[in-house]
Amino acid sequence: MKIGFIGLGVMGAPMARNLAAAGHEIVTSLNRSALPEGLAATVVPDPREVARASEIVITMLPDTPDVGRVLLGDNGVVGGLSAGALVIDMSSISPIATADFARAVREKAAGYLDAPVSGGEVGARAASLTIMVGGPASEFERALPIFEALGKNITLVGENNGAGQICKIANQIVVALNIEAVAEALVFASKAGCDPATVRKALLGGFAASRVLEVHGQRMIERTFAPGFRVRLHQKDLGLALESARALGVALPNTATVQELLNACAARGAGDADHAALVQALEVLANHPVAETRGVA
Amino acid sequence: MKIGFIGLGVMGAPMARNLAAAGHEIVTSLNRSALPEGLAATVVPDPREVARASEIVITMLPDTPDVGRVLLGDNGVVGGLSAGALVIDMSSISPIATADFARAVREKAAGYLDAPVSGGEVGARAASLTIMVGGPASEFERALPIFEALGKNITLVGENNGAGQICKIANQIVVALNIEAVAEALVFASKAGCDPATVRKALLGGFAASRVLEVHGQRMIERTFAPGFRVRLHQKDLGLALESARALGVALPNTATVQELLNACAARGAGDADHAALVQALEVLANHPVAETRGVA
Repeated sequence: MKIGFIGLGVMGAPMARNLAAAGHEIVTSLNRSALPEGLAATVVPDPREVARASEIVITMLPDTPDVGRVLLGDNGVVGGLSAGALVIDMSSISPIATADFARAVREKAAGYLDAPVSGGEVGARAASLTIMVGGPASEFERALPIFEALGKNITLVGENNGAGQICKIANQIVVALNIEAVAEALVFASKAGCDPATVRKALLGGFAASRVLEVHGQRMIERTFAPGFRVRLHQKDLGLALESARALGVALPNTATVQELLNACAARGAGDADHAALVQALEVLANHPVAETRGVA
Repeated sequence: MKIGFIGLGVMGAPMARNLAAAGHEIVTSLNRSALPEGLAATVVPDPREVARASEIVITMLPDTPDVGRVLLGDNGVVGGLSAGALVIDMSSISPIATADFARAVREKAAGYLDAPVSGGEVGARAASLTIMVGGPASEFERALPIFEALGKNITLVGENNGAGQICKIANQIVVALNIEAVAEALVFASKAGCDPATVRKALLGGFAASRVLEVHGQRMIERTFAPGFRVRLHQKDLGLALESARALGVALPNTATVQELLNACAARGAGDADHAALVQALEVLANHPVAETRGVA
């Protein structure tokens, strides 16, 4: 199938490669960069031409304004859509703006799915992304073979556009708050003189067990803060959470606190570190690094 | 072995039964109640007599002042200890007071382990408790056969008394904050119109996965708030966390917020509900019950 793919960055490039490997023909417009290594694709001048040349257009862009510009801007995707086309936005962006984008696409008698992912660059390369989808079931069915070339845990969250983005935000809330929970526990235990590695291991046996305790807890202890998922990106995602929550009328007290702690991390120069570096904000507040008690037990 | 067991409540009674089943002779003093059903034990007048009649004394009591009274009060355990005896406090209490209790016991040339548990009544009955121990390795080795009759995941957290209590507090911090994280995510997604059961399932596939998302997330969706572990007890444990953190010089911002949300739950009459009922505090703030969108997808 001819698939338009706009946004060949850290995530988009391996995703497009996986689609090409599955036999699809990739059409793209390049913004400033060259085609990523190992990807054969037809290059056209702008997003409108991508839409004209494709049955399905995928966008994988950094943030809400980028998707707005690519879809609705001058020479944007919407200007080139034929009736029956399908736009799949796999970026992680505002669910509120998503509803507007979907409306504009549907005015051209085309379909729209929001389908943000989690699993990072590793998941993108391994075609093991978690994909959370919002939109009509018929459009989801049509896109399913594409999703299956990109990921493993694929869920139609709801038939309203934005449901995928909402689910992704819920995911980012839990991950961020679980990281902060582990950080509070390890800084506390470490300053009390306990070996954080022993505490982590003991906690993994019970109700405190989580993927975050396993992976990010280990990062906090080993001080391996190379990303992974960057503080800066989690700031963006919690920004979406807090903005959407305000619009919806939902109070998210701990999401707000964690966003402020991420802001503190970024302020101290860790914006491009892995989000497990959140522990550093609590270490500064406690005037105590977790690593200090490593191996005391 | 002759084991003194003081505190035959919801947790203590099945633990004492498991020790009797392992061939130990149980000695106890009854406070106000009769011997629990199915437990054969020698009953003596007070904790001092329990200590006089036992090689090892286990305490399993509700809170710090109870342990203080039983160990150091009139006719308390310390008054009856012989040199070489061992006191094992399996209550969840203050790590600071624990250091004082250990000092008083050691003045009688007896040993002291703090060994709080997690796993609740179910774990106590099934002899599958997680046991987190603080104290000298030699005393831990001596107590190990007893721990093995009571639990499965047994860790010597540190050789200083209080390390077990610190680890238990770290556990309770993570569990409480993970519950609150899941509650924020589900209330948010639900008020945005998503089916919380679908969101929970999608999140279980990625980095948001946790025992709390699995178990307590399900309770929030199914509205099954029969305990389980009570709001009231988690309030006590986070009280220990915040009090110890202040003494140690550690800031626990989200533990503080979650304690306030638990206070709100208790204020609204849910003090004896399962701690998953924490979601109700966020539902009240959002003016939206999670259950409302059940099955909308």
